[in-house]
Amino acid sequence: MIEIDIKNAFSNKVGLRNGIGERIFRNFLSKNKNLVTKVFQSKDKNGYAFLNLPDDQSLVRKIKKQVKDHQKNKWENIVVLGIGGSALGGIALRDALLGPHHFLEKKPHLFFVDNIDPDFVTQLFSYIKFEKSLFITISKSGKTIEPMALYSYTKEKLIQKKLNLKKHLIFITDPKKGTLRPIGKEENITMFDIPEKVGGRFSVLSSVGLVPTALGGIDISALLRGAKKMRDVIKKSKPENNPALILASLQYIFDNRRNKPMTVMMPYSNSLFRFGDWYRQLLAESIGKNPKTGPTPINALGTTDQHSQVQLYSEGPKDKWFIFLHILKYKNTLKLNGNMPKELEFLNNKKLNDIIDAAYIGTSESLAKNKHPNITLHIPKLNAEILGELFMLFEFQVALLGLLYKVDAFNQPGVEQQKIITKKILSNK
Amino acid sequence: MIEIDIKNAFSNKVGLRNGIGERIFRNFLSKNKNLVTKVFQSKDKNGYAFLNLPDDQSLVRKIKKQVKDHQKNKWENIVVLGIGGSALGGIALRDALLGPHHFLEKKPHLFFVDNIDPDFVTQLFSYIKFEKSLFITISKSGKTIEPMALYSYTKEKLIQKKLNLKKHLIFITDPKKGTLRPIGKEENITMFDIPEKVGGRFSVLSSVGLVPTALGGIDISALLRGAKKMRDVIKKSKPENNPALILASLQYIFDNRRNKPMTVMMPYSNSLFRFGDWYRQLLAESIGKNPKTGPTPINALGTTDQHSQVQLYSEGPKDKWFIFLHILKYKNTLKLNGNMPKELEFLNNKKLNDIIDAAYIGTSESLAKNKHPNITLHIPKLNAEILGELFMLFEFQVALLGLLYKVDAFNQPGVEQQKIITKKILSNK
Repeated sequence: MIEIDIKNAFSNKVGLRNGIGERIFRNFLSKNKNLVTKVFQSKDKNGYAFLNLPDDQSLVRKIKKQVKDHQKNKWENIVVLGIGGSALGGIALRDALLGPHHFLEKKPHLFFVDNIDPDFVTQLFSYIKFEKSLFITISKSGKTIEPMALYSYTKEKLIQKKLNLKKHLIFITDPKKGTLRPIGKEENITMFDIPEKVGGRFSVLSSVGLVPTALGGIDISALLRGAKKMRDVIKKSKPENNPALILASLQYIFDNRRNKPMTVMMPYSNSLFRFGDWYRQLLAESIGKNPKTGPTPINALGTTDQHSQVQLYSEGPKDKWFIFLHILKYKNTLKLNGNMPKELEFLNNKKLNDIIDAAYIGTSESLAKNKHPNITLHIPKLNAEILGELFMLFEFQVALLGLLYKVDAFNQPGVEQQKIITKKILSNK
Repeated sequence: MIEIDIKNAFSNKVGLRNGIGERIFRNFLSKNKNLVTKVFQSKDKNGYAFLNLPDDQSLVRKIKKQVKDHQKNKWENIVVLGIGGSALGGIALRDALLGPHHFLEKKPHLFFVDNIDPDFVTQLFSYIKFEKSLFITISKSGKTIEPMALYSYTKEKLIQKKLNLKKHLIFITDPKKGTLRPIGKEENITMFDIPEKVGGRFSVLSSVGLVPTALGGIDISALLRGAKKMRDVIKKSKPENNPALILASLQYIFDNRRNKPMTVMMPYSNSLFRFGDWYRQLLAESIGKNPKTGPTPINALGTTDQHSQVQLYSEGPKDKWFIFLHILKYKNTLKLNGNMPKELEFLNNKKLNDIIDAAYIGTSESLAKNKHPNITLHIPKLNAEILGELFMLFEFQVALLGLLYKVDAFNQPGVEQQKIITKKILSNK
């Protein structure tokens, strides 16, 4: 189970102007414990329905049957055509569990085509053999320009190559509405539902995240088991131990009462860097709703960004707080021998594991010494169950934040204007 | 040549509270034109010496000879062991010119091992064949923990496999000082100098950026030619047309007089996403120097982040300004046919090129309508010469920012404390 360490968030470590008093924090948690109940009570309402996703065993069975059926196709590439919430959860899972260099390992490779940059698409589509590839189009409405343009192009290619659409395509879309559903029916394409009351950025534990990653070899049962475990912990914990309430309260207080509009998520793990990207959408789109409300999430990577961002983080303005993701046990151990030059002889016979660990401690402590509040999620190891815990934890945090900030965490009205201009330009061409 | 479009930065577009008056801006440029002269006059001083890098033709000749010599080795992998400024410029060049999916294309592949995460390193080192790999260690002082730990591990492996160190290693380091230089001499390793007065984050046009990318097939002569061209433009332009002075003035004014501490760089190109990472170090480390001085650079990607961050950017707090990188001509063209569903029939027979273009216009215009100032760098196409222009432009901008913000743009004192703690932990193990 993930453990949260918040000692560097308190004023006895980072001072009164930047930290939180322990007693004040306990009172805040206690005063807001009803919000946890409120979220659970809303579980069948629009948006909040992400809470029910870990219970859908019939979906898991359907997916596992598909995985078995598709094994005989020996796909070299599973190619997801999706953007935003249709891609970020899957990418986070892929990198965390198959590794940041997963394209160097054995196939099938799991690609997410989450842009329409013609160079990006062409370079990928020139490489993959269409006859060895399965394409999964993900769009709830079927009206999102990017995945639909990519789907259109892919379909054309499959037809040109006289390949069977039913064999090479899967749709993940709204159970009833939208433009993909009727196309899928007509062509007899395998389809999975995105539950009506679940939004894109909360959909990683639905078919959206499960289908592509199961086909890529990830243990989705363990993933959902982890999410359930975390949901239970959140439900049963007292306010002072409730991880989601603690995370939500810290975010709210640092932003609103300590003038820190930026939240930096910094995993000490390349495998978890894209998890930060998933969280970046979740927090930004859910809470960024008006000129007074909208913390800005920022991704960083340890140790890499110690050599890029930590100068600013340490000595610059006190406008940020930090969430470190710290791996207790990496999958691999890599030991140095005794050949270091004199100035670095303290590295002799050390493991990279020890060095990155010491670097994390050095950074979190020196930020605290410079009065920058930071917390750490200690992650026992990287597996599907832990990822399930992480997704549920942060989704619940953001549901709570909607209530604390008093905004609708589940809509995104601010992107409509851009869509209208784009459509107008294209319609007049 | 790159063109800068700043019409969405002015108050007639985004209002008085968020924009800049055109006349006030012209006065600001004119008042600060002497700073451009000052930077040029400082070109032989510590830090400012990045200005001379494009003139080093003897280095280009030395590198081209090395590239020729190494061709016979038929390397499958060029592996850079370096972090921060030793990696980010090379990564930016690789992705921009070889493409974001370059690992799918023909070898040699250009890897940057810029972390000591044991899983990240193990996954890469299990894949590459050491006998088919060239390792380039980059560290000016030779005392940076990460590249030195990786070098130590690599050397051990090469010895175990009875491979020739001289053949498989290159060092890029200080001309005289540091710990790598004597090791290289002893082992007779090919070495390249990092000019004494050039710092890591300003080193992309030195051997640091040139050696690995030349070995990876990039045209370094064109790169330096572009940098020179931009340097000439900056030198000769009047204040109101001077791209570096314009960029520096906007950054300074939006941060200090319009209360926008965040600078979002958003290329509409996966190929340029990592260029944003390079700039992120340049701006953060150079200007993030004290509690009152330190804009925070943020990376975003169009269109991808329209589905992740633009909700926050549009409706959220007015605490950001935006730099779009807009490609006028992508390398590839990808045309859709006429098979779109009714709701999306405006996409029929369009090119992805047109769609991404319309999306960029939609986003920049709707941000302006929401009173978020933004500017665009129109980039004719992606080639080595244009990248040279971009590097020189932003380096010069940051040199000017050091003078405007009155901070030393070339040091990074704020990372020392963390290094001391890390060393102490490891020394006591």
